[in-house]
Amino acid sequence: MELSDFSRPSRVADPSEGITHDELGLAARNHGLPLEALRYDVTPPGLHYVLVHYDIPAAASDWRLSIGGRVRHPLSLDLGALESLPATTLRVTLECAGNGRALLDPRPVSQPWLIEAVGTADWTGTPLRVLLAEAGVEADAVDVVFTGADHGVERGVEQDYQRGLPVAVATGDDPEVLVAYAMNGDPLPPQHGYPLRLVVPGWYGMAHVKWLRDISLTETPFVGFQQAAYRFRQHPDEVGEPVERIVPRALLIPPGFPDFLSRTRIVRPGPIALEGRAWSGLAPVTAVEVTHDGGRSWHPAELEQDGTHRWAWRRWQASWVATPGRHLLSARATDAEGNAQPLEQPWNRGGFANNLVQRVEVVCIDS
Amino acid sequence: MELSDFSRPSRVADPSEGITHDELGLAARNHGLPLEALRYDVTPPGLHYVLVHYDIPAAASDWRLSIGGRVRHPLSLDLGALESLPATTLRVTLECAGNGRALLDPRPVSQPWLIEAVGTADWTGTPLRVLLAEAGVEADAVDVVFTGADHGVERGVEQDYQRGLPVAVATGDDPEVLVAYAMNGDPLPPQHGYPLRLVVPGWYGMAHVKWLRDISLTETPFVGFQQAAYRFRQHPDEVGEPVERIVPRALLIPPGFPDFLSRTRIVRPGPIALEGRAWSGLAPVTAVEVTHDGGRSWHPAELEQDGTHRWAWRRWQASWVATPGRHLLSARATDAEGNAQPLEQPWNRGGFANNLVQRVEVVCIDS
Repeated sequence: MELSDFSRPSRVADPSEGITHDELGLAARNHGLPLEALRYDVTPPGLHYVLVHYDIPAAASDWRLSIGGRVRHPLSLDLGALESLPATTLRVTLECAGNGRALLDPRPVSQPWLIEAVGTADWTGTPLRVLLAEAGVEADAVDVVFTGADHGVERGVEQDYQRGLPVAVATGDDPEVLVAYAMNGDPLPPQHGYPLRLVVPGWYGMAHVKWLRDISLTETPFVGFQQAAYRFRQHPDEVGEPVERIVPRALLIPPGFPDFLSRTRIVRPGPIALEGRAWSGLAPVTAVEVTHDGGRSWHPAELEQDGTHRWAWRRWQASWVATPGRHLLSARATDAEGNAQPLEQPWNRGGFANNLVQRVEVVCIDS
Repeated sequence: MELSDFSRPSRVADPSEGITHDELGLAARNHGLPLEALRYDVTPPGLHYVLVHYDIPAAASDWRLSIGGRVRHPLSLDLGALESLPATTLRVTLECAGNGRALLDPRPVSQPWLIEAVGTADWTGTPLRVLLAEAGVEADAVDVVFTGADHGVERGVEQDYQRGLPVAVATGDDPEVLVAYAMNGDPLPPQHGYPLRLVVPGWYGMAHVKWLRDISLTETPFVGFQQAAYRFRQHPDEVGEPVERIVPRALLIPPGFPDFLSRTRIVRPGPIALEGRAWSGLAPVTAVEVTHDGGRSWHPAELEQDGTHRWAWRRWQASWVATPGRHLLSARATDAEGNAQPLEQPWNRGGFANNLVQRVEVVCIDS
């Protein structure tokens, strides 16, 4: 019996293939943000998206974080030691790199996110650069490798979940990378990494290593399974560019009320207040436009002031007068670097960073 | 445009039909308990299963609960008034009536639960019988109707979520029915009914009306959509028996570690501690048996003392010596009334109360 007997290579679904039992198993474990929860500035516990590659580890309060490799003073810190260091709180919108995957045609077979793998939290922790300064980074260090306690097999490879960051990112302050021990003022929930996780504002979720137990600096570029997995590829044998920063997205709170099964939205004729959130990990969001006619015409939305939360989503509002019939609503975000959401689907084998505009079917009934 | 144009009757999937986009939409919103979270006596926030028929309503702290219909003194209570009454805390295992639905063949098309739609919480609130005594139930009242603030369409019928209980159950103390305002000591999370929900220990989830805003006593038996929907039927035109109490189930924490996609479990040869939970809403669980060979032989598990929590799951433990190869593990619960989990699938059109024993595929590798 080999691991590769039941832990298979990545694949793309056949055109006629419904969602598989394996994908449903992942969808039942992990979960997205119900879109009406976009109404909260900070996502309440249990509504923030969660993706766990393997199992949620059982963690005790005697947890230790080790920092080693190419450092002058290897460290082993308990939670008390971390909490005694200066703390920073950042409001961060976190999105899974696979958000939008199950809407792709053809569909890469993996966690079948539709469009709701997002959430915003206030993360409190120790700036990583402070910890690394204390450990003393050697001049020849190039990458910083983060190891979580979650253990499993993926495409035939047994592993602890591991991701690397370049030293310049890990020791930088834009974004400020955190070793976080609190979410919305409370200890991390088990599924969000209790007791410690990495938070890398602006980067997709795969970089935010949960159940963080070791940080190790390497003198050669880190080549790990997850580093190789999260890349943009059209063909399996390509090297591909790495998946890193969150591309822009706007989401609309679906108006009216839903049909239970189809989630079609129902409204009655008259003015409807539309509201949603928009974010980008590349640059601040500067514009949101809305369409009520499936993209034939676009109207600017009112974007809330950025305030002090560079890494959090921004609220936007627009109005619409509903008339009887079917309508297709979308919103589209653009950021300060001119990145805008595509109107035609992007595609890659991993199903990463699919920020095609959301499509909300609304039926206006006259009774 | 009619509601019935997009809000369709119930149906059963074709034999070859994969999970549909509609079912995936529900799976992405709602979520189960990742089975490793069976390790916690009380399920941490965000890991307890959630099913929301329509949208999570926006609720404010000025919420009021009205009690009316066939009572002598109609009441309108704010949260402060409820919290000033005597409070009771009960540890309750809650399970969705549709748990196990997506494992059925053929598969009823609805929320596609596999086996994880369960959780246990400490619910605090006012006993319903205390509120009803204060309102003074008229002698001719037969049913108590509970209305939530969640609004939607289901199979062509626009509705607020509503369920009824017979007066004898609502005014009884076995089980003690609660109007709950706290979960695990904190205000209810939005998705669990903030600020008020009903808790009916031993009954499936559909009875535990969330976002509770009205209680009304009727002099005729209540006939509502959800009352008609949650019934055991083989054919759509049958009346069917109502779905009420939770039938017995044991769940095993899947041993070892998983493959990311298939969730196949991997262990290495040697002794393995098996652990899980078992519950029944019909009577206390009195026995759990375990098989390591797909049901050819069954071995008794050690069942933890019941303690003071009649309505909560019980922990069980067993040991197993893994040898290289594939193994099929199951656990089976029996309660004090002799109800035991079936070894062949039960089936009904709604996909309710499918407590067929769990099957955990384990691969023991020799390296």
